[in-house]
Amino acid sequence: MTEREMPRFEPRDPDYDRRLRASFARQGFMETLGVEIARIAPGEVDLVLPYKPGLTQQHGYFHAGTTTTIADTAAGYAALSLFPAGTGVLTSEFKVNLLNPAEGERVVAEGRVVKPGRRLTICRADVYGEKAGRPVHILTGLFTMVCIETLEG
Amino acid sequence: MTEREMPRFEPRDPDYDRRLRASFARQGFMETLGVEIARIAPGEVDLVLPYKPGLTQQHGYFHAGTTTTIADTAAGYAALSLFPAGTGVLTSEFKVNLLNPAEGERVVAEGRVVKPGRRLTICRADVYGEKAGRPVHILTGLFTMVCIETLEG
Amino acid sequence: MTEREMPRFEPRDPDYDRRLRASFARQGFMETLGVEIARIAPGEVDLVLPYKPGLTQQHGYFHAGTTTTIADTAAGYAALSLFPAGTGVLTSEFKVNLLNPAEGERVVAEGRVVKPGRRLTICRADVYGEKAGRPVHILTGLFTMVCIETLEG
Amino acid sequence: MTEREMPRFEPRDPDYDRRLRASFARQGFMETLGVEIARIAPGEVDLVLPYKPGLTQQHGYFHAGTTTTIADTAAGYAALSLFPAGTGVLTSEFKVNLLNPAEGERVVAEGRVVKPGRRLTICRADVYGEKAGRPVHILTGLFTMVCIETLEG
Repeated sequence: MTEREMPRFEPRDPDYDRRLRASFARQGFMETLGVEIARIAPGEVDLVLPYKPGLTQQHGYFHAGTTTTIADTAAGYAALSLFPAGTGVLTSEFKVNLLNPAEGERVVAEGRVVKPGRRLTICRADVYGEKAGRPVHILTGLFTMVCIETLEG
Repeated sequence: MTEREMPRFEPRDPDYDRRLRASFARQGFMETLGVEIARIAPGEVDLVLPYKPGLTQQHGYFHAGTTTTIADTAAGYAALSLFPAGTGVLTSEFKVNLLNPAEGERVVAEGRVVKPGRRLTICRADVYGEKAGRPVHILTGLFTMVCIETLEG
Repeated sequence: MTEREMPRFEPRDPDYDRRLRASFARQGFMETLGVEIARIAPGEVDLVLPYKPGLTQQHGYFHAGTTTTIADTAAGYAALSLFPAGTGVLTSEFKVNLLNPAEGERVVAEGRVVKPGRRLTICRADVYGEKAGRPVHILTGLFTMVCIETLEG
Repeated sequence: MTEREMPRFEPRDPDYDRRLRASFARQGFMETLGVEIARIAPGEVDLVLPYKPGLTQQHGYFHAGTTTTIADTAAGYAALSLFPAGTGVLTSEFKVNLLNPAEGERVVAEGRVVKPGRRLTICRADVYGEKAGRPVHILTGLFTMVCIETLEG
């Protein structure tokens, strides 16, 4: 995303914040990891994951699976924030580049909608590790999210 | 990968099986999820993850983060199985397509080396959900793994 | 794709071969490159691109843009071969890994459907360089294709 | 890339502009397509491709292969602009999302370095179609570039 295009989005469901939190609360895996919602805005969701030993790979860093999970979840909910009522979100595909070792007291994922659509919504997400207050860019990714009809979000 | 090319690989470290299991045992996240090693061969690693409620997304399926994690780990260890002694593996980047809902009593990831290299090794991984004994293809992905020098694998 | 799953597909449009060739003939870029159709089957399309100087990158190999183009086109037409009459194909996204220098008298792309769907069809494609009759694996990729309604295929 | 991190890069080869243009001039495929360099700065390269009939897909738009090619090339040269003298660039892998039909009088690719490295440099690229002076975002992608030793750039 360049400076050229910094889109602002209008939510189609005025109740998007509540619907998003209700969906998040149903994800058992978020509780297992210890992920918390830091911020919700139309087309933008930030998630935070504090460090704990059960999240590590073999060298003691956050496992790539954990940083990828919060990137995917932040991107998915960024998309969901723009979907109409009565719909839910599924990830169709994504790609991530791991830029630096995932060190820090916590990692923060910033999910952003790049291009909303009726069926497919394209998002990006970036993950930063925070070590002594200084952010390090540890992951950047692109995601395709699908809008599905569902009773439960 | 087509029928044209079904490579067989020679491990450079005869002790690759032990080294791989020692690295796996150091991954706190594997224990948190409940992942087990099902098979190790040169350039090939299969992992199994049984269902439990703490692994789910909002519709009750395995979270994409869990299936992606075992795909990435199976691919990484498939690469490590061909690395020389005194080295370890880091994921540089990957891409996954999610093909079907991740249902089943367990999911199985099959990591395979596509192209070994001194620095970069390209792998693929597929994940299958097993429901009443019948496998369903739920994820396919491509991975770039980096060989790093390390004392601890 | 592993040995587990080697799907065979039934075309929904019996006229798929003619429709696919008509669409291919409308692509000005295929003529510019010099791409030819080598094989069409349900869910499978092979394309061939002979070497010429106007296709090279700075070291004299086939430009990654040319091998990517035939991979994308082979994957797209593999998907189209399974679409119903009155529809066309658009690429939504893809990812490629470049495995070896793209050398040879010609390069061959093999597009294969991994998972057909009503809206989204997931494909893979592999490109081989042929040098003195011996194939070298130079690209592997994953693609998401979209089925769109169109009068002209 | 978020607002958090807008890196500025120092070139290691003061002669990077000349070296980059010399490499570009050796790419036969750039001349076949009609690509021109619009801008070079450390870690940033913009390329322009005017419309012509020989670049189209079956519906008359720019072929995804052409927009992908200029995205890859802009990203590769953005990386090369930061490499030391006596080296060249190869694409290891990339992923693109196609956001809108590739319409317009011309398409512009903006390649940007996200994370420079000694061996691997991660870049993004965006392509915009310009129709009656108004840009439309048609492609976003992520790229891994490899620095190789070479006499010729």
